[in-house]
Amino acid sequence: MRKLVLATVGVAFAGVAVAQALAPAKPEDAVRYRQSVLFVMSQHVGAMAAMVRGDRPFDQASFVANATTVDTLAKMPWEAIYVPGADQGKHRVKPEAFKEKDKVMANAKRLQDATAALVTAAKSGDQGQIKTAFGAVGGACKNCHDSYRTQ
Amino acid sequence: MRKLVLATVGVAFAGVAVAQALAPAKPEDAVRYRQSVLFVMSQHVGAMAAMVRGDRPFDQASFVANATTVDTLAKMPWEAIYVPGADQGKHRVKPEAFKEKDKVMANAKRLQDATAALVTAAKSGDQGQIKTAFGAVGGACKNCHDSYRTQ
Repeated sequence: MRKLVLATVGVAFAGVAVAQALAPAKPEDAVRYRQSVLFVMSQHVGAMAAMVRGDRPFDQASFVANATTVDTLAKMPWEAIYVPGADQGKHRVKPEAFKEKDKVMANAKRLQDATAALVTAAKSGDQGQIKTAFGAVGGACKNCHDSYRTQ
Repeated sequence: MRKLVLATVGVAFAGVAVAQALAPAKPEDAVRYRQSVLFVMSQHVGAMAAMVRGDRPFDQASFVANATTVDTLAKMPWEAIYVPGADQGKHRVKPEAFKEKDKVMANAKRLQDATAALVTAAKSGDQGQIKTAFGAVGGACKNCHDSYRTQ
């Protein structure tokens, strides 16, 4: 196992009961961590999107598992964005994100609320509820990308 | 949101009740997916290691959250390793891994069992149980790295 340098930070998400208290101390690890979490989330969101669109047969157990993974990852310590130096190097974060932490954190909270609701909807199996909840997750992604990610 | 090309595959983990039925169709996405999941896991394992070693104060809620994230990610579709073409390019997987799928999947199952036990231990708050369970997770990581990852 590679040696890891980690710092516990006081992660304070409004409304998030359990913070993960994790932030990679090295800026390059913080960037890689954030990008990795978001890439993994995108793959699982894509798997659900294919089912919602009807490109793949709906499989409830799979949908619940994908939703649970996304919900778990949505609780990532978004503070990783603000590790000193993590604004340097190659990334797609707009400069505004580094100046508007409260708004970014509010976006994270919106995503967390939406993914929690998606897990509930997935477990219900109700297709209407699932589509609505999935749309809200997509909306939370897009909202933050439009504001804070370069295209 | 970037356009995602995804395929649902029949993921069959022995003993894993809920497969995520996700595998990126493009080999470069499959490699990035696997590497991203493992990097994120390593960061959360590192956060727990710091608490187990006493380098950071033990915080049960944080430990449970980290363990839960690792447990969720351990259920990743390890089949992503076997997406055609995912053995090409830059990576640290030994050639043996591509030939010994059953053994790799057995290693994944060992990890999943260990991370599930770690969540249970973390929720109990019992330090002895946590140390034992964390050691088993580390053992599962090391076992597979020793066999299938270049150093």
